Amino acid sequence: MLMTTPPTPTPLPADPPPDIESRVSQDDHHDLRLWLRLLACCNLLDTEVRGRLRIEYGTTLPRFDLMAQLDRAPEGMKMSELSRHMMVTNGNITGITDQLERDGLVERSKVATDRRSSIIKLTPKGQHTFRKMAQSHEQWIQTLLTGLPSGTHQALFEGLAELKQLIQPRLTMR
Amino acid sequence: MLMTTPPTPTPLPADPPPDIESRVSQDDHHDLRLWLRLLACCNLLDTEVRGRLRIEYGTTLPRFDLMAQLDRAPEGMKMSELSRHMMVTNGNITGITDQLERDGLVERSKVATDRRSSIIKLTPKGQHTFRKMAQSHEQWIQTLLTGLPSGTHQALFEGLAELKQLIQPRLTMR
Repeated sequence: MLMTTPPTPTPLPADPPPDIESRVSQDDHHDLRLWLRLLACCNLLDTEVRGRLRIEYGTTLPRFDLMAQLDRAPEGMKMSELSRHMMVTNGNITGITDQLERDGLVERSKVATDRRSSIIKLTPKGQHTFRKMAQSHEQWIQTLLTGLPSGTHQALFEGLAELKQLIQPRLTMR
Repeated sequence: MLMTTPPTPTPLPADPPPDIESRVSQDDHHDLRLWLRLLACCNLLDTEVRGRLRIEYGTTLPRFDLMAQLDRAPEGMKMSELSRHMMVTNGNITGITDQLERDGLVERSKVATDRRSSIIKLTPKGQHTFRKMAQSHEQWIQTLLTGLPSGTHQALFEGLAELKQLIQPRLTMR
């Protein structure tokens, strides 16, 4: 044994990647700083959720998102309604639906009154799978947010409601 | 003139599309509700910013984002650094850089010490274009957020910092 070999230094933990807020400069307006901080928080949580969906369930956020819509509509939804409700804007809804159908998680049926459009529903397997993922998703979020002081929680919850109400009527791109 | 024709009714403003928060149910944990509200705000602002970049500047958020990185690094950045700093994770950085180079907004140069990698910089035209867009971007955000009571602004700014600090060390997907 080479007792004289110096011990391998414990590698320092890698720096967290700089987030969007690192781009803020002192000259930036305080509204811009708030927006970049909001975006930074969203990006961190979003990356975590996407990564866990991929690793633990082999799925993507757009797939999860589409199934979440259907889970709230036991009678099914038309393609056009689905795309209106999607959280992930640039998902290719037809493509995602095709994949989910191949995996037996959703099914299409014809609308009696309109032969051209079809209704998408979760299958029982899809419902079961989604509920399991949704439970995990809720658990991940709780694990990440646990310990946030209730005053802060409340302030954020109310402040974001106020923010949303303020900006909703000002939006021009929908 | 057909004076008897009833006047065309003014169309009602379309309902705002349901946002992600409309999916919350009473059973959901309050952490999940906070996350979905945060995400809803982000999505609204993000959609607005992307739409305006497209309409007013014919550009995309990943392009804007890449130029924003370069604007902070007058000495230029390597491709690998760029991708580490990007806010839009799934942008194809090589593709975006190619487009920006074709438009004369960025330029590549070889690294003297490492012939395989190149340094990307904004051209003077790129710098000028970016500064104009950044000014508009700041203006859009100010216009959207103006009138938010300063107490709410402060509470959000501080609460989000607390949230970020809490979750940073808990993230597993980077």
